[in-house]
Amino acid sequence: MTKYKLVLLRHGEGAWNKENRFCSWVDQKLSSDGIKEAQNAGKHLKSLGFEFDLVFTSILTRSIQTAWLVLEEMGQEWVPIQKSWRLNERHYGALIGLNRAEMALNHGEEQVKIWRRSYDVAPPPITESHPYYNEIYNDRRYKSCDVPEDKLPKAESLKEVLQRLLPYWNEKIVPELKSGKTILISAHGNSARALLKHLEGISDEHIANVTLPTGVPVLLELDENLHPLSPHQFLGDQEAIQAAIKKVEDQGKAKPTEKK
Amino acid sequence: MTKYKLVLLRHGEGAWNKENRFCSWVDQKLSSDGIKEAQNAGKHLKSLGFEFDLVFTSILTRSIQTAWLVLEEMGQEWVPIQKSWRLNERHYGALIGLNRAEMALNHGEEQVKIWRRSYDVAPPPITESHPYYNEIYNDRRYKSCDVPEDKLPKAESLKEVLQRLLPYWNEKIVPELKSGKTILISAHGNSARALLKHLEGISDEHIANVTLPTGVPVLLELDENLHPLSPHQFLGDQEAIQAAIKKVEDQGKAKPTEKK
Repeated sequence: MTKYKLVLLRHGEGAWNKENRFCSWVDQKLSSDGIKEAQNAGKHLKSLGFEFDLVFTSILTRSIQTAWLVLEEMGQEWVPIQKSWRLNERHYGALIGLNRAEMALNHGEEQVKIWRRSYDVAPPPITESHPYYNEIYNDRRYKSCDVPEDKLPKAESLKEVLQRLLPYWNEKIVPELKSGKTILISAHGNSARALLKHLEGISDEHIANVTLPTGVPVLLELDENLHPLSPHQFLGDQEAIQAAIKKVEDQGKAKPTEKK
Repeated sequence: MTKYKLVLLRHGEGAWNKENRFCSWVDQKLSSDGIKEAQNAGKHLKSLGFEFDLVFTSILTRSIQTAWLVLEEMGQEWVPIQKSWRLNERHYGALIGLNRAEMALNHGEEQVKIWRRSYDVAPPPITESHPYYNEIYNDRRYKSCDVPEDKLPKAESLKEVLQRLLPYWNEKIVPELKSGKTILISAHGNSARALLKHLEGISDEHIANVTLPTGVPVLLELDENLHPLSPHQFLGDQEAIQAAIKKVEDQGKAKPTEKK
């Protein structure tokens, strides 16, 4: 019997998703398509009768904006929202800001796939000379974190994402789930995948093949031990969802940058 | 010397403000003018260099939407937001949903002014036969309050608003202010007036003449004992603010309902 309900959501398309660049910890808003994706997710969750009691987001604008748009569509703006850097996107280190397709041309599709999808390979760390270093580490939001600034990651494998996410999951989210709350987590491609790996016991190898499309709610029904009762379900038009998954998978392939 | 900075904000114009009806605990979104007011407040706060550490709102959508729009304009979406019914608009009891101008015609401008502006006169309580009773008291948001549903108000004087607001101010907001945080409170005409009365020691009589325009940030600079160092300042174009105050004051006057 379903005991707990959890909806995981990868934020709608961001401005840099469109340009196929590693956005990661650079703070970007949703694109106009991303706004629509989030609104559609909200409409769909509303039509299914979801009533959230609590929402978790990262401290990156695109996940917060997604949560706001979802709640707005559902008429549930009053639901409490808790934000933590521990739900942030994977820190892509020195790769931040680079275009995935250019990178594939330079480093080969396989290396890009390893960086994007392997479980325990972290990209090279970001250094102070990186064009986005100051923007990230001088941002006021990271001064109010639960770890000192110099303990914040400089690059992460998916494994390291799960390691920094787990304390938050165990200490903040699990107690709320266990109190019977229906919870929405508005997160990022890799923080959502890391959590899914943990909950569904997906192997280190198999997680490379798990893709979450942007803006599609993923339902997890859990038993009293927080074990999933069935595989995760993508909520929405299944054909459109498969097309969205393919679009994300194609982002790692080599192709010339589109001229604007 | 200024020790603590607090910005009070009455939400932007709501859908019912436009129709000149007592909205109170009925949940309404902002009007399109209200959205612009909130955005302008955010732009102005940003231009003045405000950096918020924490935001408080009521659990009514119009105050939450105002806070979201302000933070969005400021690029400070990540700032934590805490929501409580204790910051809700005054509960207007049986008057909820009525048009102020019609009421002035029926009851006289003086009675309406007493209901709107007196300190300790509550309007007649809402009863189960009221057209908005179920919408309010069956709303899920009021099941998760810190008081049982039957202890929620059925009508309030401004004095009673302050009474239910003060425990929240003292227990939740003051400790955060004293920890040095710059705080924004996105509230309502009467919850903001009640708090202002408390902080500035405004007399029961004089508070009747204090009007807060919608969407205009009110800055309070407080000393270490939370006493104001100077009178509250309206932030923005002072001429426009005076016009906005006059608009609010005129709402209580008798005039035929505008035809749509």
